[in-house]
Amino acid sequence: MARYKITVEYDGTNLVGWQKQDIGQSAQGYLEQALYDFSGVQTDIYAAGRTDAGVHAIGQVAHFDLDTKMDLYHLREAFNAKLRDVNAPVCVVEIELVPDTFHARFCAKKRGYIYRILNRRARSVLYQNRVWHVNFPLDVQKMQKAATYLLGYHDFSAFRGAGCQAKSPFKTLDRLDIEKRGDEIIFTVEAKSFLYHQVRNMVGTLKMVGDNHLKPEDVKTILEGKLRKDAGVTAPACGLYFNKVEY
Amino acid sequence: MARYKITVEYDGTNLVGWQKQDIGQSAQGYLEQALYDFSGVQTDIYAAGRTDAGVHAIGQVAHFDLDTKMDLYHLREAFNAKLRDVNAPVCVVEIELVPDTFHARFCAKKRGYIYRILNRRARSVLYQNRVWHVNFPLDVQKMQKAATYLLGYHDFSAFRGAGCQAKSPFKTLDRLDIEKRGDEIIFTVEAKSFLYHQVRNMVGTLKMVGDNHLKPEDVKTILEGKLRKDAGVTAPACGLYFNKVEY
Repeated sequence: MARYKITVEYDGTNLVGWQKQDIGQSAQGYLEQALYDFSGVQTDIYAAGRTDAGVHAIGQVAHFDLDTKMDLYHLREAFNAKLRDVNAPVCVVEIELVPDTFHARFCAKKRGYIYRILNRRARSVLYQNRVWHVNFPLDVQKMQKAATYLLGYHDFSAFRGAGCQAKSPFKTLDRLDIEKRGDEIIFTVEAKSFLYHQVRNMVGTLKMVGDNHLKPEDVKTILEGKLRKDAGVTAPACGLYFNKVEY
Repeated sequence: MARYKITVEYDGTNLVGWQKQDIGQSAQGYLEQALYDFSGVQTDIYAAGRTDAGVHAIGQVAHFDLDTKMDLYHLREAFNAKLRDVNAPVCVVEIELVPDTFHARFCAKKRGYIYRILNRRARSVLYQNRVWHVNFPLDVQKMQKAATYLLGYHDFSAFRGAGCQAKSPFKTLDRLDIEKRGDEIIFTVEAKSFLYHQVRNMVGTLKMVGDNHLKPEDVKTILEGKLRKDAGVTAPACGLYFNKVEY
């Protein structure tokens, strides 16, 4: 048996998310179908993290097993040829052979997300479905200050989406950088793992600091209060990118 | 009379370019129609530079005249509402009132372009029609070295597209930076003005240095030889962005 690790890019706009569902197209579904089409093998492909409908991936990581060792270059080419044939919004950027002990989800040491806000009056015609368009000015400095309260080990219940299956609401947030780049505000977020909707709920809350509905210090109070209702809206899926996984 | 300066973003993928043509949609055509639709005024809109079919704009600049002074905020809103109504790939990012002596084309002191190459094996699903996909590795250091020969005041005949209407082939290239950013190679190019296809012909030639079809020093020889046939291919339109204009 040979275990393969793949790094996957996808445009989540028309996907129901990473995971196969009864209705709609998923990244997992496209990849498993492509694998079947060129190899005849029907097997599960496991990802580092499930992403929701509309969320994009720059560097999602997944793994699967085949009975035989195949040439990595040609394996990636076969995937991408089949994916292109059906015009899938998914491609395999890298492929590696890994030990049988590797597991895309359970071995992940760090996950990184990027969130993009387009902060200007006019909508984007170049980056539709790639950014959250916020059309009134946000105060980036206040958002940066608020973000510092979220760093470190905390009970993140206030930012936990309904239906979250994690056993514990405690997580360690390693990085939450907010940077202005032209018309965009870019969030770079890293942790070993996240609660369901945690990144989008943090971004939605920080945006409310940026537009002066909340003070930076309120984020500390919200975090300590542990009540989801006190935090802000869930930021839209289209601005979120699953950027990378470290093992 | 009041003269207005607008900064315009467009996705060039389905446009015939900036300029109105007999067939097809243009950025100029969309803007003039939008202006007519909300004001009843039929007038020409003049741009800092014509862009070709498929070329994008982040910060194209244009100007037009109206008989009356209008509120700038509402003028921009009216443009963007009309453009959105017809699902135009064009929007007005900024609008300013300028003196009658301002001319978007003739007063420009510097024009800036960006060119994006995606340099990896897999095609892009996130940035289709936004990058030139080159699927074998390019040597960025060699391209950077070659670029230095193009800086400054030269006869750029070797990089001049057929049908160029400029009186002289002499131009001063102020900036040609090449930077690796993840899977992408980004060219930042600035000059007071350019010959027709000059940026795309320079990028196409530098790409041939990157893939070892040419040595960096060959670019000097090509420049001095002044023959278009000695230089490389015209890089595809989809990777090119008209980024900004300085006045």
